[in-house]
Parts: sequence; structure tokens; C-alpha cells
Amino acid sequence: MNIHELIGELREDNKSKIVLLVADGLGGLPLTPGGKTELETARTPNLDKAAAEGVTGLSIPVLPGITPGSGPGHLGLFGYDPLQYRIGRGILEALGINFHVTDKDVAVRGNFCTLDASGKISDRRAGRPTTERCVAMVEKMRSVKIPGVEIFVEPVKEHRFVVVFRGENLGDAVNDTDPQAIGVAPLLAHGKDEASKKTAEFVNQFVTAVGKVLASDVPTNGVTLRGFARYPKIGTMQEIYGLKSAAIAVYPMYKGLARLVGMDILDAGSTLNDQITTLKKVWNDYSFFFLHYKYTDSTGEDGNFPAKVDMIEKLDAAVPGILELNPDVFIVTGDHSTPSKLKSHSWHPVPTLIRAASARTDAVTRFSESTCLQGGLGQFQAMHLMLMAMAHAGRLGKYGA
Amino acid sequence: MNIHELIGELREDNKSKIVLLVADGLGGLPLTPGGKTELETARTPNLDKAAAEGVTGLSIPVLPGITPGSGPGHLGLFGYDPLQYRIGRGILEALGINFHVTDKDVAVRGNFCTLDASGKISDRRAGRPTTERCVAMVEKMRSVKIPGVEIFVEPVKEHRFVVVFRGENLGDAVNDTDPQAIGVAPLLAHGKDEASKKTAEFVNQFVTAVGKVLASDVPTNGVTLRGFARYPKIGTMQEIYGLKSAAIAVYPMYKGLARLVGMDILDAGSTLNDQITTLKKVWNDYSFFFLHYKYTDSTGEDGNFPAKVDMIEKLDAAVPGILELNPDVFIVTGDHSTPSKLKSHSWHPVPTLIRAASARTDAVTRFSESTCLQGGLGQFQAMHLMLMAMAHAGRLGKYGA
Repeated sequence: MNIHELIGELREDNKSKIVLLVADGLGGLPLTPGGKTELETARTPNLDKAAAEGVTGLSIPVLPGITPGSGPGHLGLFGYDPLQYRIGRGILEALGINFHVTDKDVAVRGNFCTLDASGKISDRRAGRPTTERCVAMVEKMRSVKIPGVEIFVEPVKEHRFVVVFRGENLGDAVNDTDPQAIGVAPLLAHGKDEASKKTAEFVNQFVTAVGKVLASDVPTNGVTLRGFARYPKIGTMQEIYGLKSAAIAVYPMYKGLARLVGMDILDAGSTLNDQITTLKKVWNDYSFFFLHYKYTDSTGEDGNFPAKVDMIEKLDAAVPGILELNPDVFIVTGDHSTPSKLKSHSWHPVPTLIRAASARTDAVTRFSESTCLQGGLGQFQAMHLMLMAMAHAGRLGKYGA
Repeated sequence: MNIHELIGELREDNKSKIVLLVADGLGGLPLTPGGKTELETARTPNLDKAAAEGVTGLSIPVLPGITPGSGPGHLGLFGYDPLQYRIGRGILEALGINFHVTDKDVAVRGNFCTLDASGKISDRRAGRPTTERCVAMVEKMRSVKIPGVEIFVEPVKEHRFVVVFRGENLGDAVNDTDPQAIGVAPLLAHGKDEASKKTAEFVNQFVTAVGKVLASDVPTNGVTLRGFARYPKIGTMQEIYGLKSAAIAVYPMYKGLARLVGMDILDAGSTLNDQITTLKKVWNDYSFFFLHYKYTDSTGEDGNFPAKVDMIEKLDAAVPGILELNPDVFIVTGDHSTPSKLKSHSWHPVPTLIRAASARTDAVTRFSESTCLQGGLGQFQAMHLMLMAMAHAGRLGKYGA
């Protein structure tokens, strides 16, 4: 029996409220051996108090040693096995620009490229055009209509865009048309099954038509497509946990990931204060709240240790505003670590706290990587966090008699 | 998706070097409650320093409570799920005497037994003959030739030997001919499928012929065969991790296990110093080095606590010679525990350290069972160690966007 089936058997409804505060890329590393991490450096009286009142541990996003992207990182936190539920590149790109993907869609990431007179790729990124030019080229591509399918083209950034093919029974087992090499022509699309053959036919017609439209627009006179993907079939948070769930996130990618698991996407403004204002406003309308905080990740990606420390302290300052609402279960964690030292996501386990009346508190009174190692949650797989959230909320009955 | 497929997707090549130092049976137990283990008793300044500079934890070889043999213990450390990849007894016996098994071979463990006048077993171990007699009897068996199959017979020790049947399409679904009882005749071999029926036929012909050859050699006048096994189909370390891998081991069994996963088997001499000399000589030729140290296990098996302490201290003295080479990732662990108190392998988790620039160091400054409990790696499954080795070496890309 898989975990979702188990929860389906055991879950019980009540009036409890769960807040999941995700500080993106929360975990870090010391800059020098024996030094402190960003979280250990930051002054975090409110997180420390919550850690002292609750139970702490470290979340392993996927498996030991595996560094997740935002997609698998969040799916794990929402209780979906990130090795089982995979989100294709096309879908993630569409989520990232807040495009509302439906279950009739096949999405794909597009790149502008430069084609020479013989139709061979001479630059795989079309000389990295400006985003303005990207928008203009996308506008031209939108003039292409193919009978039998609805096509959406959306700009992303520089040479990147998204194409969504919407129709009945379209498959996504279609090869990339990007040959990942120069001196060769873009590849034709081929489908592996009937549904995907249908998609491939539309794709080839689209690419041919686009070629004519962009013919004179050197260096952005060609396109390649990568990562054809359908919306994954995925049970919603409501279906699995019986939780009416709201996402209060600022960035499109995280709104998109929350929409993927069936959360309502609320208007969150643009700051943490805006997000907490929203939280207060809708407090009575939902049982589960996903709050996403981006800046612990972005400062880590920038390699800016003091800025990450600062962003952690800003997050800490927002905690009392959440606790005022008396959530039955308050969880703080991250989808992965983003150590400033590495300037990238990493595999290191993520400090996590659960504050709830039913928590078995531990001796940890400081919220950090090193202290959470001694916490009562131990090191656990992120995909098990929602089980603990449900348990601490009194929403999981006994398994077996 | 299984872990090896995941690694196949994520792995990236670089110039990093990984050293895996396996102290066989490393973990131990105190002789008296509240006392110290062998590792806690030993003076290990170099291992302690590496532990302080790196991250520590405890490896669970298979599952909690499961005591592994050398085969599953090492397969786990090499990143192969020891419950999925099983090595048959015949193959392990062949590896243990350094017999080069091929994919055309079915290997089986043989025992000399004593047969009475009616052909029934009166002693299942033939009165435990000397190894010299074993060698002589094996020599006689080698005179047996069976058309259509090549047969190798190799002595092991006392009443034990190995037979390898080499031919096209031989199966290993063949029952043991050892009835595990006296007063009955050895069983005929039967194959469960076409390929195994072919093997069984050769086996029965061989046993009949051997019976004639040994007829006058009471008490070693009969043989029984157990654990027919083919070489398991197993991806190599190169195929799975992209690591050019070398084994620097003294004992045949560990060379055999390393050969099984495709490592090059280097001439390692007979001492730890010889092994490190070899390591230095081939440092530029490989990216992964498996160093095996036997004596922590054999002293444990002997129940000789002070000797195990001594062997741990000798191991510690060799560590600087390895670290001189500046491996990007240096791992010390064991394939299982072998507490002197139990005189056998055990299930107890095994102290482990990973020293690498990207390690999130913990507060542990002493390498031992009790201190590693506080380490940043927590308690982890041995089969996940290679994931962490790869991550710390910068050889695993991000999973999902």
C-alpha cells in the first residue's frame, strides 16, 4: 500500500489548521571549516522559541546526496514521492511563467537558435537575444495557426520561451528537436505512441510554419524544442489529505507547483508582510496554508552569505505574525539547502521544526543545522513531513486495531 | 525509478578522486556494560582528525538488525541494494579462492562426504579431512571429463571445494544435492528450466564419474554440492557512476567482490603499507579507490579484543599516507560490525566518516560508535553511501528543475 492510500484510510477531519512555511534553500554551510552556517549566524529569536516549544530535525529532500530542483523539492514537502512524481521540463517552464496548464496540454521549452543558409544550427542560443526581442519574436510566432490544435507561445527570458499544444489525446513521448549540437539541422519530432505521434505531427507543422515567419529574423530565425511534457496526473491535497489548501507565494514557479497539487492560489502581494496579511484575511477559509519565502534561496544562489543571513532574520521577524493566529501545527523547513558557499542548491539536509501541542519536544532551543541534528524528528525524508503534519494536527487515526 | 537509473541521469564527470577505505568488521561492542568498544579504546589521532574535518554517522549495512556476510556488506557499500543483488553461495566461494568466474559459468560449493556400502551418507563432512587431503582428492576429481561442458574443480579447505561448470546457456536453478541429513543418499540434481536441466544433467554425470574415481578413498568417497549460482548480472562502477575504479585489497574474497562490480584489481602486496604504495603509484590512473583492510574483522572473529584495538591503531597510522594524496572525498567505514565479544559479524551500525570540502561538518571530533551517533550523516543505509560520495565529489547534478 502506498502512503497516499494509507492516509486515505486513516485520515480524520477536524477544525485544525496547519501552516507550512517553506524558506526556499534554507540550509547552508559554513564558509570556512568549523565556522557557522547562515542560519547559525543569523539572530532568530522567534524561530528559536518555536524550535524550543516544538520538535526539530533535518529533512532529506529526496535521498542522501541527491540535490533537488524546486519541483521535486516542493513535491516532497507536499508529501509526494519526488522519485515517483516527476514534472517534465516543459510543465515546469510553464508553471514558472504562471501559465495555467490544463490536462489537455503538452508543454515544451523552446529556444531560439540561429540557422545558416542550409538550415543548420550555427548558434544554439541565437546570440542570447534581449528579452524584448524574445517577446517580439514570440508575438510573430503567435500568428501561426495549425488546424486541430490550439497553440500558446509565451516568452520566458532571452532565448527562452514556452509552447503549449492543447488538444484531445495528445501524448508527450516526443523527442527533443534540439540536437544539442551546432552544424546540424534541428531534429524532426517523432512520437513513440499513437497519442504522441499526433503531437509530433502538430509540432513539425508548427516548426515549419514558424521557420517561414521568422525567416528574415537572423539571428533568431530558428527554434528548437526540449522537454515535451503533460501535466502529471496527481491527486490533490484535498483528495489525499482532506485539507482545503491555500498557497500564499509571491513567485510564479511556486504558485504553479501549488496549483499542481490542487491548492488555491491566493493573491499574496509582493512582500512577506503582504503574505501574512493575506494569511490573516483567509484564516477561516482553509485548513492548510503553504507560505513560500524565496529570498533564502536567491541570496544563497548569489553566493551572498551576509544577505542570506539578513533574509533569514527578516523571515524570523515575520514568525510572530503567523503565531498570533494560533495554528495547531506550525512547520518551518526548506525544499533543499542552498549554501552561499556553493552558490547552488545542494543535497545537505534541511533544518525543520514542528510546533504543535502534541509534539514531543526535544532539548533543542536554537533553530539551526547543527542543533536540529539533536532533534526529536531525527533525519527524515521530506515526503514523510506531511504525515507528521497530519498526525500533529490530530488528523490521522490509528492504523489497524 | 531505481537509484542506478537516477545516478545515470544526474552524474557529471570531473577530475575528483574518491577513496573508500573499508575496515572490515569495524564496529564493535564493549566487553562489559558501560565499557568501551574496540574503536573507543584505540588511540586514533588521524581518524579523529579526519572525523573532525568531515562529517560522520553510522552505516546500517542492510536493514536494522540484519547481519550481512562479506558479499552483501560490500555490495551495499558499493551502492548496490544487497536485498536486490544477491550473490549465490557457489559464486562467493569461487570469488573467495580468486577463481575468475565468467558469464558462462555455474559455480557450486562442494563438500566431501562419507558414503556407506549402500551409497548412503554416514558423515556429511567426511571426518573433516586435512586440506592436504582435500587438494589430493580434488586432483583426482580433475581427471573427470564430461563431453559438452568444461569443468573446473578447486580446493578450498578441509572438506570444502568449488566446482565450476562452464558452457553455453547453463542455468543455475538446480537443487542442492546435499540432503543435509545422514542415512540417505545424495540427491540427484534437477533443473527447473531448460537451461538448468542442461546443467543438472552435466552435474549428475560429473557426480557419478567422481563416485567411481573416489570409490576407494573412504572416508572422502563421496561429494555433495550446494548453492548452484551464475555470476549475477550487475552494472559496473564505471557504467553506474562513471568512475574508473581500482581495488587495492589483499584477500581474494574482496578482490573477487570488487571484480564483480567491474573494478580493476591491482597488485596490492600483503600489508597496508604495500596497499598505500600501490595507491600512490596508480593515483593518476583512477577516480575511485577501494582499499580493503581485513584485520579488524579477523581479530573480531577471533574474539581478541586487544588485537582488534591494535589493528585499528595500525589502520589509523596509515591514514596520513592516504591524505597526503589530497583525495577530494575520503571515506572510512566498514562493511559490518564484528564485535570481539560476539566473535562474529553483527548487525550493529558501523562508524563512518566522509572528509570533503563540501561536507557540512558536525561537532564530532572523535571517530567511534558513540560519537558518530551525534554526526551529521545520522544513521543511513550503506547503499546510499555512494550517493553521498558522488555528491561530495561534485559528481551529481541537480534532480529536476
